[in-house]
Amino acid sequence: MNPLVKKMEYAVRGRLAIRADEIREELEHGNSNKYSFKRIVNCNIGNPQQLNQPPITFFRQVSSLCDNPDLLKKEHRSLVSQLYPKDAIERAEALLNAIGSVGAYSHSQGVPYIRNTVARFIEQRDGHPANPNDIYLTQGASAGVQTILSMITENSNTGIMIPIPQYPLYSASLALYGATPVTYYLDEATGWSLDVQQLTETVDAARREGVDVRALVIINPGNPTGQCLSSENMKDILTFCFEKRLVLLADEVYQTNIYEPEQRPFISFKKALMEYPDKHVRDNLELVSFHSISKGMVGECGRRGGYFECVNIDQGIMEQLYKVASVSLCPNVHGQVLVDLMCNPPCQGDPSYDSYTKEVQSIYDSLRRRSKKLEKCFNSMEGVSCQPAQGSMYLFPTISLSNKAVEQAKKQGICPDEYYCRAMLEATGVCVVAGSGFGQKANTWHFRSTFLPEEHLFDEFCSSLENFHRQFLEQHSEY
Amino acid sequence: MNPLVKKMEYAVRGRLAIRADEIREELEHGNSNKYSFKRIVNCNIGNPQQLNQPPITFFRQVSSLCDNPDLLKKEHRSLVSQLYPKDAIERAEALLNAIGSVGAYSHSQGVPYIRNTVARFIEQRDGHPANPNDIYLTQGASAGVQTILSMITENSNTGIMIPIPQYPLYSASLALYGATPVTYYLDEATGWSLDVQQLTETVDAARREGVDVRALVIINPGNPTGQCLSSENMKDILTFCFEKRLVLLADEVYQTNIYEPEQRPFISFKKALMEYPDKHVRDNLELVSFHSISKGMVGECGRRGGYFECVNIDQGIMEQLYKVASVSLCPNVHGQVLVDLMCNPPCQGDPSYDSYTKEVQSIYDSLRRRSKKLEKCFNSMEGVSCQPAQGSMYLFPTISLSNKAVEQAKKQGICPDEYYCRAMLEATGVCVVAGSGFGQKANTWHFRSTFLPEEHLFDEFCSSLENFHRQFLEQHSEY
Repeated sequence: MNPLVKKMEYAVRGRLAIRADEIREELEHGNSNKYSFKRIVNCNIGNPQQLNQPPITFFRQVSSLCDNPDLLKKEHRSLVSQLYPKDAIERAEALLNAIGSVGAYSHSQGVPYIRNTVARFIEQRDGHPANPNDIYLTQGASAGVQTILSMITENSNTGIMIPIPQYPLYSASLALYGATPVTYYLDEATGWSLDVQQLTETVDAARREGVDVRALVIINPGNPTGQCLSSENMKDILTFCFEKRLVLLADEVYQTNIYEPEQRPFISFKKALMEYPDKHVRDNLELVSFHSISKGMVGECGRRGGYFECVNIDQGIMEQLYKVASVSLCPNVHGQVLVDLMCNPPCQGDPSYDSYTKEVQSIYDSLRRRSKKLEKCFNSMEGVSCQPAQGSMYLFPTISLSNKAVEQAKKQGICPDEYYCRAMLEATGVCVVAGSGFGQKANTWHFRSTFLPEEHLFDEFCSSLENFHRQFLEQHSEY
Repeated sequence: MNPLVKKMEYAVRGRLAIRADEIREELEHGNSNKYSFKRIVNCNIGNPQQLNQPPITFFRQVSSLCDNPDLLKKEHRSLVSQLYPKDAIERAEALLNAIGSVGAYSHSQGVPYIRNTVARFIEQRDGHPANPNDIYLTQGASAGVQTILSMITENSNTGIMIPIPQYPLYSASLALYGATPVTYYLDEATGWSLDVQQLTETVDAARREGVDVRALVIINPGNPTGQCLSSENMKDILTFCFEKRLVLLADEVYQTNIYEPEQRPFISFKKALMEYPDKHVRDNLELVSFHSISKGMVGECGRRGGYFECVNIDQGIMEQLYKVASVSLCPNVHGQVLVDLMCNPPCQGDPSYDSYTKEVQSIYDSLRRRSKKLEKCFNSMEGVSCQPAQGSMYLFPTISLSNKAVEQAKKQGICPDEYYCRAMLEATGVCVVAGSGFGQKANTWHFRSTFLPEEHLFDEFCSSLENFHRQFLEQHSEY
């Protein structure tokens, strides 16, 4: 068997999540008196609709019409127009006209019409042109990231820079492809900021040791850390990548999950690059930027849709990329349809505009309120400290653990933070992910939690965490 | 860049298909007088709905209701019941009850409820039990095949036996993972039959050379060859795999595309294994069987759905498999929904039973008629010979090419069969795949064509191929 598979770890759906599934099964089959809670709350994964975040109505209307084109036939028009707004019907007709059937393989890169929509979206977002031929639709951002990482990896000496803490898709994929992770640290004390001086030292040190460092991964807004980069910082990162001849891989899937938009708005790396003062950098720095329908206010994780845009990537590589995509035939067309809708939602004047805007705003406001509430909750706990949520769907508090807790963990052969998270799961039904699954500075302990539990349950959620933490401290106080 | 990517080839969407897209673009933008045809006919890929095969109504009804659960609300019931049959509504409710939202990530292996449906389907098909925990839902069969091949590949010395000719997913994936393809030949003269004596010689020779041969890939019904294995032949293959300690990878995606059901019914390898006389073999032979929603009468290629069942696979490997699946989070839920529907279609007595049965029968009958018609067409051409279509969606005729044609091809630096196929594309708009993309015996030339063009266009399609072939022979007759 492939030894690289054995090496790989993916904590977001690791032991703790498997244990949560076991408990859920027990609860569903009536073993509820074993536990002091009634349900499992999955805060281990950014999966909003699992926790009842409603889908955007317009998106689902268009998508369901694409799925059942019989409804678009003349004979059903009078009934269907009572169930669907005019713009949903027209959009479905336009999409089907471009796609043919959602049941047919599309172009390997994705439906050309939809890639056009994405290009226009990027242009509007950034104020700079985008080429549909440089865009690949993907089955979620993860599939795109994996394709690019596997292409960059020439052999086990290929180095890819990834942050610590990081989303474990990166470490898992590098383990699978046998590349060398070259890790740089985000600085917790300054809100998980990214220090370019440290990037330079890291790449230089790795290269001195003979590692062939090829690319830099930046997750912005951060996962699991939630920070959002400033434009000055981004400019320095671009300078760094250009000087060190690194491909920049920008994971920007949380680009609309921005909770301090005045102080820290989202800026895409594409925009930052296009506005970089030196033309030589603008025309040559290689950038791949990833986006997804799973996050933001869309939250359509189960559909597996996303895209990446290639900027300044060599034509020979682009041809190889097409070949790799073509072996998988195409990303699923339902996911592609949602990418189209995310990138081109109803406009002012459209029948669905008001309801669309209201729904998005309501999800956004609620996410923001919950992020602040959970941040406050964590910071109120003894020995817990949490950086502010600028973006994404997560908080990543640090916890001090007593020697007793550390020893108990050691006895069980697990990391102290995993020990803490396991105790939390068994006591509250809340499933989070231990910091060790993302990487963290030696002898610091964290966990990642989403703030996705429903708002009417949120106070209960917070107080169950507080109660658990208090009890945990008591049970593990020094002798 | 990854050197393995450069090595990889995937002819189904290779140069010829890219050229076909260019011509389509030209035709759409009014450059139609350059060509003697009005449209591109994609016979390079088994993509039925691209060529207007209608989707199964019931499947799309259920799927669209899952997509737009607003329609299931009480207030819409009177309208919706005029558009949807009762069983479609009930099925959508049952699925949503089990899934939650199609917009949420599911269990990494796929929704447990749907894996249950698959297990019951396998039990009914084979008459032997199946365990939902041994089933993985996938994004089409291709994704499942790639997962398994990447897991089996320990290093470049790992050998995987694949047929020649073969579906290039296999050669491409082995190239990508750096494994060694160990090829065995199907015998065209005897209807592309599989000779176990030859398998034995092949594996022994490879092992003598130090290749660590681990697995045998069988595509049944065959792709590109269309043959269907007899039960005796399957039993011999199982004996062979057991004796040679090989994992059997059974690509059974064409299991309902069977055109001579009396002489050659489809038998799954799972059934053949469960009925193997020796218990030791039944309990130990490792088998992975792949299925898909893209083929059969379903033809839902664009949704990317499928599954594989693991039989007798070591528990340690199963755990690693789960980890690999979890990094990709889950297969898209719309594809999963279709797997459920394919495996559990309407039953006798259900409101949709009659229309479902009629639709499936009509697609089947038409596919069968077209397969026979194209087989006859090929066999009527001078210098062309075609084995009967027992199954799948393809024919793989052999063509004799004159020295002049071979020389012309050489001048252009391409294979003679690709030269022939390119001439066909430029003359008729029909895009097929050259035999060299699948592998073939040295100095024989073939091409693969689907028989999916619509029935009312089929005579025109056949005669355009006949005319082209006649002209090609004239233009390339010996001096």
